[in-house]
Amino acid sequence: MTKSSSAGKPTLSGGQKPLRKGLLSAVDLTEAEIRFLLGTAKAFSPAVNRGDSIPLLQGQTVVNLFFENSTRTRTSFELATRKLGGGVLNFAASTSSVVKGETLIDTAKNLEAMRPSCLVVRHASAGSPMTLAAQVDIPVVNAGDGFHEHPTQALLDVYTMEEKLGNVRGKRVVILGDIAHSRVARSNIYVLRKLGASVAVCAPPTLLPPHPETLGVDYAYRPESLLPDADIVMALRIQLERQNRMQMPSLAEYSKFWGLDNERAKMLKPGAIILHPGPVNRGVELDTEVADGPRSVILDQVYNGVLVRMAILASICNPDGLKNWLLKEGKNV
Amino acid sequence: MTKSSSAGKPTLSGGQKPLRKGLLSAVDLTEAEIRFLLGTAKAFSPAVNRGDSIPLLQGQTVVNLFFENSTRTRTSFELATRKLGGGVLNFAASTSSVVKGETLIDTAKNLEAMRPSCLVVRHASAGSPMTLAAQVDIPVVNAGDGFHEHPTQALLDVYTMEEKLGNVRGKRVVILGDIAHSRVARSNIYVLRKLGASVAVCAPPTLLPPHPETLGVDYAYRPESLLPDADIVMALRIQLERQNRMQMPSLAEYSKFWGLDNERAKMLKPGAIILHPGPVNRGVELDTEVADGPRSVILDQVYNGVLVRMAILASICNPDGLKNWLLKEGKNV
Amino acid sequence: MTKSSSAGKPTLSGGQKPLRKGLLSAVDLTEAEIRFLLGTAKAFSPAVNRGDSIPLLQGQTVVNLFFENSTRTRTSFELATRKLGGGVLNFAASTSSVVKGETLIDTAKNLEAMRPSCLVVRHASAGSPMTLAAQVDIPVVNAGDGFHEHPTQALLDVYTMEEKLGNVRGKRVVILGDIAHSRVARSNIYVLRKLGASVAVCAPPTLLPPHPETLGVDYAYRPESLLPDADIVMALRIQLERQNRMQMPSLAEYSKFWGLDNERAKMLKPGAIILHPGPVNRGVELDTEVADGPRSVILDQVYNGVLVRMAILASICNPDGLKNWLLKEGKNV
Repeated sequence: MTKSSSAGKPTLSGGQKPLRKGLLSAVDLTEAEIRFLLGTAKAFSPAVNRGDSIPLLQGQTVVNLFFENSTRTRTSFELATRKLGGGVLNFAASTSSVVKGETLIDTAKNLEAMRPSCLVVRHASAGSPMTLAAQVDIPVVNAGDGFHEHPTQALLDVYTMEEKLGNVRGKRVVILGDIAHSRVARSNIYVLRKLGASVAVCAPPTLLPPHPETLGVDYAYRPESLLPDADIVMALRIQLERQNRMQMPSLAEYSKFWGLDNERAKMLKPGAIILHPGPVNRGVELDTEVADGPRSVILDQVYNGVLVRMAILASICNPDGLKNWLLKEGKNV
Repeated sequence: MTKSSSAGKPTLSGGQKPLRKGLLSAVDLTEAEIRFLLGTAKAFSPAVNRGDSIPLLQGQTVVNLFFENSTRTRTSFELATRKLGGGVLNFAASTSSVVKGETLIDTAKNLEAMRPSCLVVRHASAGSPMTLAAQVDIPVVNAGDGFHEHPTQALLDVYTMEEKLGNVRGKRVVILGDIAHSRVARSNIYVLRKLGASVAVCAPPTLLPPHPETLGVDYAYRPESLLPDADIVMALRIQLERQNRMQMPSLAEYSKFWGLDNERAKMLKPGAIILHPGPVNRGVELDTEVADGPRSVILDQVYNGVLVRMAILASICNPDGLKNWLLKEGKNV
Repeated sequence: MTKSSSAGKPTLSGGQKPLRKGLLSAVDLTEAEIRFLLGTAKAFSPAVNRGDSIPLLQGQTVVNLFFENSTRTRTSFELATRKLGGGVLNFAASTSSVVKGETLIDTAKNLEAMRPSCLVVRHASAGSPMTLAAQVDIPVVNAGDGFHEHPTQALLDVYTMEEKLGNVRGKRVVILGDIAHSRVARSNIYVLRKLGASVAVCAPPTLLPPHPETLGVDYAYRPESLLPDADIVMALRIQLERQNRMQMPSLAEYSKFWGLDNERAKMLKPGAIILHPGPVNRGVELDTEVADGPRSVILDQVYNGVLVRMAILASICNPDGLKNWLLKEGKNV
């Protein structure tokens, strides 16, 4: 099987719709696709825990094309690629030809011409990865596009929820923070609803999208009414670096009314867990005691991110090899 | 055969002058050396197309020492090194000891002391790679030095021309743009003339070197007289980022009189092809319809760049291994 | 043997105190540990000279977490990791989440959650690597912390001294320069004294620490009295990039009275050698004739840095594998 043929027609086990153009959005994923990716990540987990690599991307190159800074997402993709035996090419916008005025698409087409297996794209503009995917023949993975989607984050979040609490079907998830501008919230809502979870969002009115109910979620302006029923709370990051467009009176007020401090965490049921996509602004979204407390699964999210991205990359870049690996290992995903 | 002995006396097949100090300039290459490098690149092509790597640089490290930004050249060398099984160390001037006031030569000598196989150097000053090569014992590859030379670009350009049109001997090549300040033009002229092509250059008078005829080329101030006879047109990049030294009234005027738009492209013979070293300033050197049109081989250039740089690195870092590989594969280069 | 168990309890041959939390300071190293690391580096030398890799870090990842710029130290760790078959993740503060206001410890904990084998940390604040090591479960290597310590530099310096002159016991080492603010001087003094060398420091009074004798060293304000007895002179770098806190009248005066020029070098015994941690400010700490002269071992230091860091990383990340390798090779370290 040659690389180009496999890149052209990746299939997931069971014959459902393939990740043909990579992974662009959570909204387009079927429940079966989500389950396959989560199951594959879980199947990888013992080998990765032992420190073994799973050489499904041997000889392949994944390009990280990041037009926004990112520590953990880029690193996570880099480690995922390496643990699959692949090579990584990192692009940061500031050092690339982008400063010479090259268009996004020309940059991508030029990278494509060097025949990598996959482009992992982060961009400040919503829809950029989709625009790219329409123009290039290699798969594109959306690593976060503006306020739009962050599907790999949503998958690792759900993986972490299920690792701790079992199937999310029927679970109550409360997402707390700047819902209007959060790609993490949006992608999580899509994935969680497809898997049968019940989702509520909570934010000051100025940080809620116009009609939250159209997303199929409940909402409230203050967290107190939602916390007692929550199995899972996800606190979103306030983008301090985008303060000039912050639609709230002050960080202090945000922290006072929407921050998850010890007081509010005590409202939660026993066993309820707290997620945050990181990096945490301590004292703003989460108090330090909460961020480092027993309910926090933030560092599990980071670790699981590598597993989930391995599953995504293997599904996209070497679907047949992955199928064989799962068979050989006796994993029924 | 140890690395140090092979690095010391690389030989090309057939016993011609070796690439002893790496590849510093196109002007110094013999026709036999050019033919060997182009032939090796072609011999690598099927394996690279299949996604196989050719492990001639296993255990070796190539240092990319870039004092100017570059997306495609650095990436191309990085991919070429990896496809040969080697490791890459990237140096960007801005993050290196250069900001501590270390001299170019001290930087290179320090890197040399860590025993990489090869230094790939890009620098804004003409002659820097030659200065370095005289001071260090490991081979140096010139990845572009100021307005002087860019030999690996010229080799990939000629490879692309011959891939499309066969041997360049007797072919007419028109180079269009800022000839005076173009290392790409200079290196291409040297290589093309050695292989028997006929070259003409075209630019506004202020962007031509003082006596173009001394380069062994024809010239004209306007493209219309040259295009009908051209087999190959190479449009050069206008360095927008160096606009302050631009010796032309305006970009609009450049585009109007020297840009390759649909109108001018129609003057070309059937089968004539268009190259550009990239990144293209769309609407300036090339109209979008031309850049993306059927004559354009710009993305082929990008892909071929990896093949040609593989040939160069293998010739320099492991000439005996390369010779054996060519023998084993039955390639008569 | 799994990675996590080996990372948890590294042991050095002979049963001395293990490098349990990595290598944080020279002051805490025992003579036996120093001897083991130097001996391991020497044992690696023939294989590295042949260009062979020693695959003791296969499948492992070392994170370079650099909050200060560095060419040679980062590169040296990167090459050391690669020659051991490991992968490297590079973090530069400027492109990381640090600009989003993430704390040092959160950054490290997030990286730790991705399960690398080791964090190599450089930071402008003294004590940062120790603070980190107390918070994370994976080993930390101090690659330079403010004015405090630079233990890997001290080990490579001593390795170089002994390679040239044999055991340092009883040898006289003169360290010349800004002793008060030099982590290199401090770490060297600790290591050299443990191995039985006699150390003297020399600087203008403003660049000496308050009570140099508490470090167990002799001192003088001018070099002339110390040079004739020196077996080894180590000139320290004047930090031009920190000129605003320089406590000397001018660079010209420093060079005139404390710089090692030909005149002063002539005072040295035959066979005495000159070290410098680099990068050299030519004409300030060392004249060019001296820096490039026969006594200078500066480039040996650079090469040996890779060997010594290989020994450190192998001891920390795979102590059992290292022990087996040494046994198999018949090296009695």
